[in-house]
Amino acid sequence: MKYILTFVALAILSVTTYAHNPNSEPPTKTMKTSSVQHVVLFKFKPETTPAKLKEIIAAFEALPSKIKEIKGLKWGTNNSPEDHAHGLTHAFILTFDSAKDRDAYLPHPAHKAFGTIVGPWIADLTVVDFADQAK
Amino acid sequence: MKYILTFVALAILSVTTYAHNPNSEPPTKTMKTSSVQHVVLFKFKPETTPAKLKEIIAAFEALPSKIKEIKGLKWGTNNSPEDHAHGLTHAFILTFDSAKDRDAYLPHPAHKAFGTIVGPWIADLTVVDFADQAK
Repeated sequence: MKYILTFVALAILSVTTYAHNPNSEPPTKTMKTSSVQHVVLFKFKPETTPAKLKEIIAAFEALPSKIKEIKGLKWGTNNSPEDHAHGLTHAFILTFDSAKDRDAYLPHPAHKAFGTIVGPWIADLTVVDFADQAK
Repeated sequence: MKYILTFVALAILSVTTYAHNPNSEPPTKTMKTSSVQHVVLFKFKPETTPAKLKEIIAAFEALPSKIKEIKGLKWGTNNSPEDHAHGLTHAFILTFDSAKDRDAYLPHPAHKAFGTIVGPWIADLTVVDFADQAK
């Protein structure tokens, strides 16, 4: 009897572990091929103070908590030694599950509110979105 | 006795599950904050044929198999409706574990060879690298 109970406990735990693991093969593969990367590169006006920059970055970092379609955020300052940045100093990459989710993000009130915060300080920006096609 | 065995099985499985779960908090946070994203955006010359484009993309997609420092590759064609792409149509994001690995990639013979394939067809390019600082 004790072996049966142990086996049952193991079986239940194995199933639970698989179900809760976001890296289980099938769902991960599906998400990868359909995910949309939203790449935003900023060049700020020279008068943008460090305090203002901090405020802008904090506002961007708060977006995933306000917009459920955002599934990932990476950001940082340019450190490329290749000299092809055209003065763009700050990069943000948002990940969406689909172009539909990206489309829901663009007119979202929280995104619009961020636009009014960052807008006056932008000297130049580049935005490229793409559905990941890597094999 | 059977309860003790069941408890021991549960305890062992819980510890094993935690240890094997790549989403366990400490290791994920550490890897995430140190990764470097290498963002490459291309605008191709009008005379770049679809066949040539296919060759260029295949050559880029082959890089991770030739350069061990490349830990991830995503790529796709621009589908942003925001009109801030400045004619850049193709995006590639390479992931490295560190700026040191990115520095090893740049002069790598396989990367240089790719440069000779793509170079003659580039009308414009933007490259921004950053160490991910997202919390």
